[in-house]
Amino acid sequence: MSVDIPSLIEDLAKKAKRASLELAASSTSDKNGALQSMARGLESNRKFLLEENQKDIDAAEENGLNEAMVDRLRLTHERIDGMVQGLRQLIGLPDPVGKVIEEKNRPNGLNIRKVRTPIGVIGIIYESRPNVTIDCAGLCLKSGNASILRGGKEALHSNQALASVIKQSLTGSPIPQDSVQLVPTVDREALNHLLTLDRYVHCIIPRGGEGLIRFVAENSSIPVIKHYKGVCNLFVDAEANLDMARQIAVSSKCGRPGVCNAIENLIVDEKIAPEFLPPCARELVDKGCELLVDEKAGSLLGDFSTKPATDEHYEEEFLDLRLSIKVVDSLDDAILFVNRFGSGHSESIITEDKERAERFLREVDASSVYWNASTRFTDGFEFGLGAEIGISTDRLHARGPMGLEELCTYKYLVTGNGQWK
Amino acid sequence: MSVDIPSLIEDLAKKAKRASLELAASSTSDKNGALQSMARGLESNRKFLLEENQKDIDAAEENGLNEAMVDRLRLTHERIDGMVQGLRQLIGLPDPVGKVIEEKNRPNGLNIRKVRTPIGVIGIIYESRPNVTIDCAGLCLKSGNASILRGGKEALHSNQALASVIKQSLTGSPIPQDSVQLVPTVDREALNHLLTLDRYVHCIIPRGGEGLIRFVAENSSIPVIKHYKGVCNLFVDAEANLDMARQIAVSSKCGRPGVCNAIENLIVDEKIAPEFLPPCARELVDKGCELLVDEKAGSLLGDFSTKPATDEHYEEEFLDLRLSIKVVDSLDDAILFVNRFGSGHSESIITEDKERAERFLREVDASSVYWNASTRFTDGFEFGLGAEIGISTDRLHARGPMGLEELCTYKYLVTGNGQWK
Repeated sequence: MSVDIPSLIEDLAKKAKRASLELAASSTSDKNGALQSMARGLESNRKFLLEENQKDIDAAEENGLNEAMVDRLRLTHERIDGMVQGLRQLIGLPDPVGKVIEEKNRPNGLNIRKVRTPIGVIGIIYESRPNVTIDCAGLCLKSGNASILRGGKEALHSNQALASVIKQSLTGSPIPQDSVQLVPTVDREALNHLLTLDRYVHCIIPRGGEGLIRFVAENSSIPVIKHYKGVCNLFVDAEANLDMARQIAVSSKCGRPGVCNAIENLIVDEKIAPEFLPPCARELVDKGCELLVDEKAGSLLGDFSTKPATDEHYEEEFLDLRLSIKVVDSLDDAILFVNRFGSGHSESIITEDKERAERFLREVDASSVYWNASTRFTDGFEFGLGAEIGISTDRLHARGPMGLEELCTYKYLVTGNGQWK
Repeated sequence: MSVDIPSLIEDLAKKAKRASLELAASSTSDKNGALQSMARGLESNRKFLLEENQKDIDAAEENGLNEAMVDRLRLTHERIDGMVQGLRQLIGLPDPVGKVIEEKNRPNGLNIRKVRTPIGVIGIIYESRPNVTIDCAGLCLKSGNASILRGGKEALHSNQALASVIKQSLTGSPIPQDSVQLVPTVDREALNHLLTLDRYVHCIIPRGGEGLIRFVAENSSIPVIKHYKGVCNLFVDAEANLDMARQIAVSSKCGRPGVCNAIENLIVDEKIAPEFLPPCARELVDKGCELLVDEKAGSLLGDFSTKPATDEHYEEEFLDLRLSIKVVDSLDDAILFVNRFGSGHSESIITEDKERAERFLREVDASSVYWNASTRFTDGFEFGLGAEIGISTDRLHARGPMGLEELCTYKYLVTGNGQWK
């Protein structure tokens, strides 16, 4: 019997929509109870989860996936512990739903309250890491949203096992079972159809590489919140504390080069470049970092093996121990460079001059702009959000780290005593 | 010489993007000065504007457009006065940009400020009314956004005239001339190409009929904020003050039936339906309103000429003197009905029972939910926003009436003293 994929997906989305209305009106303690059941469910189903995961690992190895990919796919006791802890942390966070954000009394006697509410149904499209299934289901549930999860094809067994544990855990809880839905097929038709169901699904969050995100943005008639690449810039101003600048340059590149808030471009004012660049390059190279340089930087770094940097390098997210270096004339040039090549994620200026810092903060167009600190702090936990579903490089709805509040919208509640017009 | 439309549009979008960075950093007084120049420009170019508008009117009449369409297209002295007043009102409104929305000090010493900033470049896609050109250019400018305006083909002469007056007015002001761009062609290829330019354009707001909005939502890779139809419901609860209910039912249908916040469905609890419906129907019919009724309502309204209501009627935005009537068993049924057929715009309950009102307010899923007041108050001015660019039926970014603050996003400004991790 052939499965009719569009009706399968439509049915699943309808169920999520129906569940979302009930979930939106659920109490904090009911939602926390459901998170607790999910955590317990994961703990008591370790064996089943690891067995199902092994099927994905075997298939991946058979298909010759590289080691990094296989590692991303793998569940271990430690990683299950991580998911359990993640769910328990959510229990401790304040419920974002129901908060009165603003209240007004109008001259005609109407009282208007702007109240935070869940978005409704959120679709998460992600790649191979199965822990995303639990992280996202938990974040959506705590914020009162039903979720539709569509993971990568390599992780289908693992995700189905995790989803069945979630469903089981919700049985008997006052939270509707349909609040968390896994798309049970990785057929591309299912994804394509899901992206058209704006009647039932209110928001799509793709998590993964640029190709996936672009595909989703171009094919979705549902609003999408995107996290494109993080091309972060560090500008060392003429008035910088050079020791601070070196420390931050080296740590924000080499601390963890594979993350989106690591820097890709180091911009240096020419007035301090001769003093700053050689010792900084020494530390970078000692940590295994490859340097791509413009002409001026190259002439100052003759003792090092460097490569010429092109415009393509300046807008590339290396996610690796590579760093492009650009020497500029002025703060103006630095701001122009950042606004041209940066991806709107995180940018930093190192300077002791308050006025220049304030210009950089005001004129640089990015989700997070730093003065005398590393771009590596762009993160939901570091920003005190308590949790993070992603970092938006979009400008609408949410920008920068997204926590529980950013998974919500609002509605206006208006109380009168018979007003008409 | 043939014009290469994609490069024309790309060039225009690039210019808008460049202007947007400068505009975002502009002072309130510079922006207000530009609005003042625009207002003066309109006043001193009345003759030119009316002449150019006449070309559109002549063409419309030649092409046999109906009277209502021609009227929408027409500029008059009074309508020019309206645009001028609109711009002058914007001058008096607070500048939304730069406001610190939230501030935190983190344990590691970082100070994090969440600061309101313009979105960047906003594309407005609209239909025939030329005053939208000025309204939207003004709202975007005051909120620090560059705008790309694409009006209807019937209004091209009028819009080009208005755009040239804006450009002229910005000359010599510190606001970049490229801050307001009119798409100089109504070729569909231009619109299609514009909707792909997510590198330069950050948000699209379509204003017009459902067909236009759906086309834009389906073809844009740029985030869209939509205002779909307004199918608003009024529920008269068993515990309603029936005089209040009748007054609100009649006024919210017949006061101005062609607007999106007028009601389309009247839902009545069966316990008070026999007492409430006949006198209410009398007033409605006296005002020329056609009634579409379910079986129960029909049996109570035997003295009136009514038609049977179908599910299609319940989800239709009549924009006319037609009203569907539904009799329900309970508050639960009313909430289910509203969440099924409403368009998420505005819904109201009339009741003296606080508990039932609170359930309705909590469980109904719409931008604005009313208790003992008319849905007609969903409006930027009535909500105290001072201005309105539209009413969003979306949930992301903005929901309900959108004013200057809703045309903004935010960025995080993070200040440290050398923090790295």
